[in-house]
Amino acid sequence: MAEPKENLQMEKIVSLCKRRGFVFQSSEIYGGLNGFWDYGPLGAELKRNVKELWWHAMTRQRDDVAGLEATIIMSPQIWKASGHVDTFSDPMCDCLLTKKRFRADQIEPQSGIVYHYPGARSSFTNELKQSLDNQLDAAVVFRIHDPKDREADRKAAEKSLSDLRKENDLSSWLKLQEAIVTLGSEYNVRELVETISNFCVKHGKSSNFSFAVLLAAGKPPESARKLAKEFYSQRGILEPELGEERIEKIGLDHPLATRFNPENGSLLSEPRPFNLMFKTYVGPVESEDGIAYLRPETAQAIFAQFKNVLETSRQKVPFGIAQVGKAFRNEVTPRNFTFRSREFEQMELEFFIKPDEVIEAIHGSVATLETPDPKPKTPEPQPNWGWQAWHQYWVEERVRFYEGLGLSRDTLGFHRQTPAELAHYARACTDILFKFPFSKKDEQGNVAGDELEGIAARSDFDLSQHQRFSGKPMGVFDEELRAAWAKLPKEKQDDLWKRYYDNRKNYLTKSAKPDETAEQISKQSTDDANGLARGQYIPHVIEPSAGVDRLILALIANAYSEVTETDDKGKSETRVTMKFHPRVAPFKAGIFPLLKNKPDLVAKAQAVRDLLRPWMNVFYDEGGSIGKRYARQDEAGTPFCVTIDFDTLGEKPELLDTVTIRHRDDGRQERLKISELLAFLLLKIR
Amino acid sequence: MAEPKENLQMEKIVSLCKRRGFVFQSSEIYGGLNGFWDYGPLGAELKRNVKELWWHAMTRQRDDVAGLEATIIMSPQIWKASGHVDTFSDPMCDCLLTKKRFRADQIEPQSGIVYHYPGARSSFTNELKQSLDNQLDAAVVFRIHDPKDREADRKAAEKSLSDLRKENDLSSWLKLQEAIVTLGSEYNVRELVETISNFCVKHGKSSNFSFAVLLAAGKPPESARKLAKEFYSQRGILEPELGEERIEKIGLDHPLATRFNPENGSLLSEPRPFNLMFKTYVGPVESEDGIAYLRPETAQAIFAQFKNVLETSRQKVPFGIAQVGKAFRNEVTPRNFTFRSREFEQMELEFFIKPDEVIEAIHGSVATLETPDPKPKTPEPQPNWGWQAWHQYWVEERVRFYEGLGLSRDTLGFHRQTPAELAHYARACTDILFKFPFSKKDEQGNVAGDELEGIAARSDFDLSQHQRFSGKPMGVFDEELRAAWAKLPKEKQDDLWKRYYDNRKNYLTKSAKPDETAEQISKQSTDDANGLARGQYIPHVIEPSAGVDRLILALIANAYSEVTETDDKGKSETRVTMKFHPRVAPFKAGIFPLLKNKPDLVAKAQAVRDLLRPWMNVFYDEGGSIGKRYARQDEAGTPFCVTIDFDTLGEKPELLDTVTIRHRDDGRQERLKISELLAFLLLKIR
Repeated sequence: MAEPKENLQMEKIVSLCKRRGFVFQSSEIYGGLNGFWDYGPLGAELKRNVKELWWHAMTRQRDDVAGLEATIIMSPQIWKASGHVDTFSDPMCDCLLTKKRFRADQIEPQSGIVYHYPGARSSFTNELKQSLDNQLDAAVVFRIHDPKDREADRKAAEKSLSDLRKENDLSSWLKLQEAIVTLGSEYNVRELVETISNFCVKHGKSSNFSFAVLLAAGKPPESARKLAKEFYSQRGILEPELGEERIEKIGLDHPLATRFNPENGSLLSEPRPFNLMFKTYVGPVESEDGIAYLRPETAQAIFAQFKNVLETSRQKVPFGIAQVGKAFRNEVTPRNFTFRSREFEQMELEFFIKPDEVIEAIHGSVATLETPDPKPKTPEPQPNWGWQAWHQYWVEERVRFYEGLGLSRDTLGFHRQTPAELAHYARACTDILFKFPFSKKDEQGNVAGDELEGIAARSDFDLSQHQRFSGKPMGVFDEELRAAWAKLPKEKQDDLWKRYYDNRKNYLTKSAKPDETAEQISKQSTDDANGLARGQYIPHVIEPSAGVDRLILALIANAYSEVTETDDKGKSETRVTMKFHPRVAPFKAGIFPLLKNKPDLVAKAQAVRDLLRPWMNVFYDEGGSIGKRYARQDEAGTPFCVTIDFDTLGEKPELLDTVTIRHRDDGRQERLKISELLAFLLLKIR
Repeated sequence: MAEPKENLQMEKIVSLCKRRGFVFQSSEIYGGLNGFWDYGPLGAELKRNVKELWWHAMTRQRDDVAGLEATIIMSPQIWKASGHVDTFSDPMCDCLLTKKRFRADQIEPQSGIVYHYPGARSSFTNELKQSLDNQLDAAVVFRIHDPKDREADRKAAEKSLSDLRKENDLSSWLKLQEAIVTLGSEYNVRELVETISNFCVKHGKSSNFSFAVLLAAGKPPESARKLAKEFYSQRGILEPELGEERIEKIGLDHPLATRFNPENGSLLSEPRPFNLMFKTYVGPVESEDGIAYLRPETAQAIFAQFKNVLETSRQKVPFGIAQVGKAFRNEVTPRNFTFRSREFEQMELEFFIKPDEVIEAIHGSVATLETPDPKPKTPEPQPNWGWQAWHQYWVEERVRFYEGLGLSRDTLGFHRQTPAELAHYARACTDILFKFPFSKKDEQGNVAGDELEGIAARSDFDLSQHQRFSGKPMGVFDEELRAAWAKLPKEKQDDLWKRYYDNRKNYLTKSAKPDETAEQISKQSTDDANGLARGQYIPHVIEPSAGVDRLILALIANAYSEVTETDDKGKSETRVTMKFHPRVAPFKAGIFPLLKNKPDLVAKAQAVRDLLRPWMNVFYDEGGSIGKRYARQDEAGTPFCVTIDFDTLGEKPELLDTVTIRHRDDGRQERLKISELLAFLLLKIR
């Protein structure tokens, strides 16, 4: 297990996940839904165990973390403050011909010949009447598409249609449109506009909009013309006559090299930002006022409820707020099984700490940690830790957590973000990586891995943003700071004041709204620094943010182990064992009566099952040979199997009330008293 | 606790929930979001405990239930099959004047005088030019609203505008429109249509759409006219001149009595169905193809994954699939705190059973249960149970679950749905109610309660629907049935065949799609009944479906207890104790060193904390007097407080390593050895 499983193919994992009920495709009977995955019986237990262990480690086992469970849909203001509404987007462009959408930054440059067209005009006039009639039919169909419409409405609509056919001019079109807009808000307005637009374009019989096609060198120009005609036809120019063609040869470094659909050569629309948040509407009206988003991360609720939690939980900075929950991102290209999906679960901690200036005012200096390396225990947090020490502490704590689930350090990797990668407000971010089967090798054949969790030092950015957007104070008052400050020498006060002022000014400048002036920012920074002298500050935050689904996938990849055995007849069979750590294993023990047709064995086995069940998840199985039952539990990752046999019933009196325990990973068997079984297993699975 | 707390006001509960961190308003710093609630530190623990207990009771403690964790966003086909797309809606109508939306079936009838208007025409012509110019400005603003647009685009748009102002006729409008539709798909098309529409209506200078106002008898007709003018103004008739007024007196039983806005008298639009599902789009394009819904219930994923779970979990019918998870309903009027919210959590079991015809074929007859009444234990399920026995079994199991969380039977109520209330496919549905503070009293002063959970016998409707909509078989093959059938006398076979046929035909007829003929239905029913004879059937289902948030609210209301004490000086103080069952209490024990400035006491108390913590959630508290610390834990609902004092350290040698345990509900204190503490508490909280 120590080495990354370089030869393990994702297909084997996906197949096992489906076959044994770890992970199914969401809505599989309806063809699935790209980027959505369900957890089956084994997967659901595995996931529950992981989330429970995280919650235990991060909140219940600590005095300094409180839990939170906030809603997925929150005020859209939260996503304005966090920056997600404005910047959580990918650049997208559309094929002007097929409307297919592309990530603009993922289009490989292409060279070839570009055929430019300035526009087109229709070579067609006679069939205008017929075409109009067809469109009228379409318009009326949508006008009366609601079967619940009153009979009268339908008649009115039909009359409009009939008038319209008689008059057949633009003004009667507009009358129909007026009727529709006035009567109801449920109609498909987009369709209406397009219909009218088509009519108008045909009426005008020409289009001045330019189009272009990229062909590989040597391809016949006629195919470019064909696409261009299709383009103008789609825009309502019947039988288009193309304007004068202009030809341009381009290389891979030409600005146009990434501006054409790689599949058909059509020009793409200009890239536009595509927001990755799923949008919906809250309330009975689909209006701007009701826009809401499915949260793209769980963190923001923690910031928004920071004050409520602080005031109700008897916590003081430094302390954290933990949350586990679903988040949603409308990924353009979901991939790597459950690694990058559109609906996923996060486990996030926001750990609020004092700014370094506060630590220095109180303690005289800011303690740092040595570069962490595997020691028996993470050091105990100290009051004089600054953000760097806290950041290192949390990286180390989180690595230990993964080790505790069976992911050894050599299966993990680390990536410390460079200054260029960091957001302007972030002080540091360390990603903990896992070497997945799909992780890329570098030129030396080394695998860095893909991200399981990021631990970011985010300064006071988040709380500051919510303070500015909500108008509600997010700072805390610290009596110890106030008292310490009063005793500081003037030069020290001035130094700390200035550093805090500079930090605040830097933040306020980089995050300024368009209407905020330099004077306002200076004044606010002065106020903030003066607040510090009175014992007030906005906490900084360290954010260990983990993805549940990625961790589950890592645990599955890490546990996957197969052995191929060939029997005497040369027939080979591959057997899979999922070597989960007992803590995370879906079932902790399989309980088997040796034979299912012996009531005494069955009764005893059920008694053992009932003894263990209140304390752990067990699987009772009577079916097939013991060997088969072992194999089934090996695939499910069950670490222990308990067999109740005739000796248990006292066939050998000295073995009365003992059972056989078989260990999954090495097949070792031992005999244990039933009275000692629960304690034995509890020690293994805790 | 036995009696419903008739005098307990919801305000007190809401206030405690906020003050102690059980429940906060979602996004509170941004003014909240109606119908969304967050769980604070205590609430999150309470909720975790409840969900964990349900999961234990429903899956881990049973051999016959498997778990599932499916996505919130699923294929929209699922909601077509389930009927939610077509029928999960409330009738809504809009005020034609203010656009405010109303539940049509919740408008109280009104009597008075109705003023009918046939239409209006504009008395205004001269300012047309000015008005047009204003609209053009608006149109161009939205044309170039994207700051990333190329400079060239902006110039083109500005030229269009300038041309337009010069020409000022309809055809140039349409040119602008063509430009917009052709160039980009991101523009606000609705706004465009409305702008054009306003222009056209003004151009036409009249409207033939009728309007009406209801005034209470005696009110001056002028106020009706004022509203009518506003109505036509909004539709672009400048300075409207009303058509001839018609007056009608109506009583409370007139059809029009519920057709006017109770707040301003304006006519309402015709009621239209408003679907309660939150809608969003999956994938990079907002098109019909990408429509998806947030699940309005967790049940459907279970049906959709029925076959996958069956095939991977070694279960056979009868067995169940359990799921806990979020669901979303865009309630028109969220109310009663967390009882009816828009985002909530469900705990649902779908328990699949054999149809009664199968039971009868195998066992000769179908066993029923006596009417359940509190017995020491729910009877063990038997192979010959029919749906009625299973339904009663699950009602009883679920009541016992609630009792186990501290809700005694007299705080609960039951409602057995009448045939008129039942869906056409449902055989029975029993609701388990809780007597909430807001639950209504009947005329005798009795409180029935409001729904915590519904236990429905849903026949084979759900699996049948998914079979028909997905085209994937949802039936199972039962060897026992096939073997038993072959041995049945012919008359018995015919009888069972006919009954199964009738049931299938009844379902298929009532659920028929528009294009399904009676012949097709007969043929399908025949096939289904012939399948039965070969050992095949579609399982029926019993569905115990519980709401987590409602249960949390019930537990909080049930636990709430207050005592007002008046001291010698006549000053009275009200103290709240949350009498949670230890199983659900957020913290199981408070751990207190007697004094915080005695390192030995603190160290010993922390050792006790660390002893208990791996096994239960505890709260360590050094601050304030012991009495104050008790009071804090009483409000949090912590059942036990453990104090470490000087005797613990051996001041009285015979009390060395003992602690005081204080019981929350009666204030009783006892002395216990630390070595016995863990076992003592584990027994209480399990």
